[in-house]
Amino acid sequence: MIDVPLSEKKLIQQIRRSARRGIDKGKSVTTGIGDDCAVLRVPPGHELLVTTDFTIENVHFRRDWHRPELVGRRCLTRGLSDIAAMGGEPLAAFLSLAVSSDVPQKWVDRFLKGLLDLAVEFKVPLAGGDTAQSPAGIQADIVVVGSVPKGRAVLRSGAKAGEQIYVTGELGGSAAAMARLMELKPGGAESFRRFSRFSSRHSHPQPRVAVGRWLRHRGVVSAMIDLSDGLSTDLDHICQESHVGAEIEAEAIPRAQVGKRPAALELALHGGDDYELLFTSAAAVPSRIAGVRVTRIGRTTKSAGMRLIGVDGKARALEALGWEHFRRNQES
Amino acid sequence: MIDVPLSEKKLIQQIRRSARRGIDKGKSVTTGIGDDCAVLRVPPGHELLVTTDFTIENVHFRRDWHRPELVGRRCLTRGLSDIAAMGGEPLAAFLSLAVSSDVPQKWVDRFLKGLLDLAVEFKVPLAGGDTAQSPAGIQADIVVVGSVPKGRAVLRSGAKAGEQIYVTGELGGSAAAMARLMELKPGGAESFRRFSRFSSRHSHPQPRVAVGRWLRHRGVVSAMIDLSDGLSTDLDHICQESHVGAEIEAEAIPRAQVGKRPAALELALHGGDDYELLFTSAAAVPSRIAGVRVTRIGRTTKSAGMRLIGVDGKARALEALGWEHFRRNQES
Repeated sequence: MIDVPLSEKKLIQQIRRSARRGIDKGKSVTTGIGDDCAVLRVPPGHELLVTTDFTIENVHFRRDWHRPELVGRRCLTRGLSDIAAMGGEPLAAFLSLAVSSDVPQKWVDRFLKGLLDLAVEFKVPLAGGDTAQSPAGIQADIVVVGSVPKGRAVLRSGAKAGEQIYVTGELGGSAAAMARLMELKPGGAESFRRFSRFSSRHSHPQPRVAVGRWLRHRGVVSAMIDLSDGLSTDLDHICQESHVGAEIEAEAIPRAQVGKRPAALELALHGGDDYELLFTSAAAVPSRIAGVRVTRIGRTTKSAGMRLIGVDGKARALEALGWEHFRRNQES
Repeated sequence: MIDVPLSEKKLIQQIRRSARRGIDKGKSVTTGIGDDCAVLRVPPGHELLVTTDFTIENVHFRRDWHRPELVGRRCLTRGLSDIAAMGGEPLAAFLSLAVSSDVPQKWVDRFLKGLLDLAVEFKVPLAGGDTAQSPAGIQADIVVVGSVPKGRAVLRSGAKAGEQIYVTGELGGSAAAMARLMELKPGGAESFRRFSRFSSRHSHPQPRVAVGRWLRHRGVVSAMIDLSDGLSTDLDHICQESHVGAEIEAEAIPRAQVGKRPAALELALHGGDDYELLFTSAAAVPSRIAGVRVTRIGRTTKSAGMRLIGVDGKARALEALGWEHFRRNQES
């Protein structure tokens, strides 16, 4: 009942390779892979941020649908996006990876390539982790450690009534890509490759670290969360934690262009995995931050609950559905 | 492809319950579960330690062999033991837990109880994590974050030739329990319950945090590792990283009492999961530290490789076998 570190050597090789790409340990990692713990330096006057996220085969991805590079990239995106949502700076990542013996080494290589390409992009060293043989399929757990000036972490609980609600980028692109994948019959992989060109948000997610840092640094953000579960669910988290309500204008929601048309409103409202930032602010916020579009989509209210203002100007209750629920309703 | 946080509510309930047991956030956790990241305070003048360890069903444990409380306890032990091996102080733990729908909630409750009992014992708050539905079985990943005064982390690479080699506690107890379990036929669970009384090290592992801290604080330790893969493998890690050899005296190795007799020498040499500390020192070390027995078992040498001095005084090469290898040889 001891780890069989089948892919550990390969993992360590890959990581050493990443060193040559200039992100070995960085200035924050004093001891990386190869000891009982990694040793990290947190900048003086800073607090530590820690986030962990699973990426599990047949739950978060399917081997016949998703390119391994994309699975790796999204795995790290989930962690970096959480750091971004606190207004923090990523310091290091740790990957725990369990792989069953039927997974080709090539798959693992390509998974690591996708993950490390993003790590290089964000100058985040892979400082450790664990490897194990999985009895079935692939399970990855990514840990990202970051820092933020003491007392300045942007929480979900800081929103006040009467503030404006903003999102970065465009919503619904990832869910639209998934919805399209689900319509495809076996042999869909090829179609997906064609389709993925249409939905860059699904096929090439981009954590919004620079935007989160800008907002925190300028002190113009009161509450923030990343859109991983979908707008309705994640907005509900801010409302619950901040004890406010929210009013969203359907027409204001920036919808991702998928192929030739925008993603359906329902997907922009309830679709997950967009990794955009949702935040509240009492101040005016520029329409573009760090090269990313920022859109006002509504306001916080004193009265609890979420409401959606339709094109006709009429308000209806907005439920925190989540994508799974939405999908089940689609099927039934 | 979104998390189905089936057990998340239960997990959060359990964690809130742990709060009432006095380890809610501790002084180092400013924001715990329920935001995008946990926010932690690292003591001034300290560096950060990070370790991650998988616990996977049918790799690290079997549901029909191991009580869920023990699986939970060992899950956290693995992380705390790594912090101990650096001479560090644990600050917070993070648990990522994926459970398939056939796992009874009762199992998860008992797993969390075992984990949280140990967390209370070591005053380590569970500050976050992730939950997901697993397609099959149980996968847990534990992250423990700790701290150590700047530049004082005890690495594997600090041993010099001519130093003494020490271990804490007794070795081979966990492997002996496992070996006995493997002899048992179906219905072995009941026998295991009886048997577990004989091997407290397997059924109630105890991370050696106080010993590691004492050694680091007194500055008497040059290199250290925890015994998770077995003495021969873990000693080899120190030798490789420190560029020294080692000579171990077979008679000096403290063997765990299993039932009425000591564990076999081979199990003490190659059996894993003891979670004792193996360290080198140029100074004299007391025979008992923080209530734990400490035994000199050999010395480091200039010449590379590991040697075992038998009862007959003759030296033979000691190979880093690891327990899996040892077990396979037993079977064949």
